Amino acid sequence: MKHIETTQFGTHYILDGYGANPEILKDTTSLKAMLTTLVTEMHMHAISDTIVVEVGEKNTKDPGGVSGFVMIAESHISFHTFPKRGFVTIDVYTCQNDLDTDTLTQKFTENFSLKDIDVQVIKRGTKYPTENLY
Amino acid sequence: MKHIETTQFGTHYILDGYGANPEILKDTTSLKAMLTTLVTEMHMHAISDTIVVEVGEKNTKDPGGVSGFVMIAESHISFHTFPKRGFVTIDVYTCQNDLDTDTLTQKFTENFSLKDIDVQVIKRGTKYPTENLY
Repeated sequence: MKHIETTQFGTHYILDGYGANPEILKDTTSLKAMLTTLVTEMHMHAISDTIVVEVGEKNTKDPGGVSGFVMIAESHISFHTFPKRGFVTIDVYTCQNDLDTDTLTQKFTENFSLKDIDVQVIKRGTKYPTENLY
Repeated sequence: MKHIETTQFGTHYILDGYGANPEILKDTTSLKAMLTTLVTEMHMHAISDTIVVEVGEKNTKDPGGVSGFVMIAESHISFHTFPKRGFVTIDVYTCQNDLDTDTLTQKFTENFSLKDIDVQVIKRGTKYPTENLY
């Protein structure tokens, strides 16, 4: 098998936020606008509609909230909010290895009025071939 | 501030797969069926349509492929394929903390004929409140 040159495919930014403003977390119209604005501000390119749906209560662990998603040429952005718990969980996955994660953290913290956050930045596809194989 | 009991919100399964069969990676119809079947087999519940779109070549790093997404009551599943590189990158994010990650790995490895994989399983929302705050 011939040697394949590889590189890192992308960066996956993960934020779990606590103590959020519940009014923000349940406002589907504002959440949709926030997601659309974020795509533009981060110089990404949407390739699907921005989908934002209300999700009903499921059980004692999951009292419902709002889920959002947009597919971008660079990969995807998603969030799930739980207004009754003040919790929001966010993914920004992009093939931009120079993703400005500090700006993302600042924007999300401000937009959701978060009191506490856990951020993880994960390397994705570390053995991605630099050239076409097929 | 009163003490808040917390628990782990969910589990995020990440698979980056290499050496995949390029014919599988470009077959939008089969990919859509695979995603729909997976939701059922993993006892998840779709709350959006399964979206599968072809994505054109963007630059030398990204020669295009197919992206798929479905929002589930339990969170979301997404994939992005790059047939010319034999690469697929998958996320399964669920509030089921007992997610059967071994079964997922087996299914994805078989379905895409993967030769090499990197799997990461990430704890999400480790400070998720067990009860409603609002």
